[in-house]
Amino acid sequence: MNDMHLFEKTLSEEEIYDGVVVKLWKDQVELENGEKTVREVVRHPGGVCVLPLDRDGNVYMVKQFRYPFKTVLMEIPAGKKEPGEEPIDCGIRELGEEIGAKAERVTFIGKLYPTVAYDTEIIWMYLAEGLSFSGGQHLDPEEFVDVVKMPFEEAYRMAMNDEIPDAKTQLALLRAKAIIEGRGK
Amino acid sequence: MNDMHLFEKTLSEEEIYDGVVVKLWKDQVELENGEKTVREVVRHPGGVCVLPLDRDGNVYMVKQFRYPFKTVLMEIPAGKKEPGEEPIDCGIRELGEEIGAKAERVTFIGKLYPTVAYDTEIIWMYLAEGLSFSGGQHLDPEEFVDVVKMPFEEAYRMAMNDEIPDAKTQLALLRAKAIIEGRGK
Repeated sequence: MNDMHLFEKTLSEEEIYDGVVVKLWKDQVELENGEKTVREVVRHPGGVCVLPLDRDGNVYMVKQFRYPFKTVLMEIPAGKKEPGEEPIDCGIRELGEEIGAKAERVTFIGKLYPTVAYDTEIIWMYLAEGLSFSGGQHLDPEEFVDVVKMPFEEAYRMAMNDEIPDAKTQLALLRAKAIIEGRGK
Repeated sequence: MNDMHLFEKTLSEEEIYDGVVVKLWKDQVELENGEKTVREVVRHPGGVCVLPLDRDGNVYMVKQFRYPFKTVLMEIPAGKKEPGEEPIDCGIRELGEEIGAKAERVTFIGKLYPTVAYDTEIIWMYLAEGLSFSGGQHLDPEEFVDVVKMPFEEAYRMAMNDEIPDAKTQLALLRAKAIIEGRGK
């Protein structure tokens, strides 16, 4: 079926707020039925997350205070892409910065659109294997995280049990499990 | 390990924008090291998504134009919670509105925080089984969607193959697969 009839036509764009992390735009659009409405859009440069898996089957995550939820969440290393940066390079950089690791193999395992209704953010997911630790963490000045190491199966169980609510971390764990099990077949 | 040292202290809150979908706040906070910084937060009432699975093993999704990506995406039925609405009631409502279905069993299969760095949104996920169709769609006036029916395994394959980038849809499909396979054991 052709989807063109669902498309919305942009009539105007207005920048509402240009912040440190969030850029907000308010556009006027024309719908399928000719009616006009407003679309509010958070513009985001995109991000990358990396699931680090060592030779003994352990994963590494970081505990970080997440202000919107006023609590500490467990997540795999992740960060915003720099302008012009390739997703895989961003993943390798975050792996070094957040847990001080280098990887022999970094495999793309999928991408996700976290908030399709009002946010342009895309997150690329990678699996990092063959880890070595030498450099130590080197975080951004305003970044504070604690590194946690645990068996992959324990992290997967926590994700399925709603103890890891972060979407990118859940998805990377579930996808990695399917991919790793698929290799054994 | 105690996480309290990671907590940030709110010093002030300022509303930047109060829109139709997006409400944006800009808070001043104090970090672990005593430095002050800004946290921009999109405040969202939360949402619900429902994976409809019929007796023949087919799932139902909707194709919808998603303005931030200027394209049509395939997603399971979903929507914003009304004030005071329970997540499961929102799921049952969206199932009726978007695909015109009622379900004999609606099972909670997990929740996700799509955008932990700057957005309060939480999405509750449900699996709806024992479907009956009688009422037809009754969409919001500004909502246009096409319903798509396909075998569960085909939808799962599309999610793993990056043909369904929406985070909630991917996660619901991957979680449902693990849950359904677990029942057979």
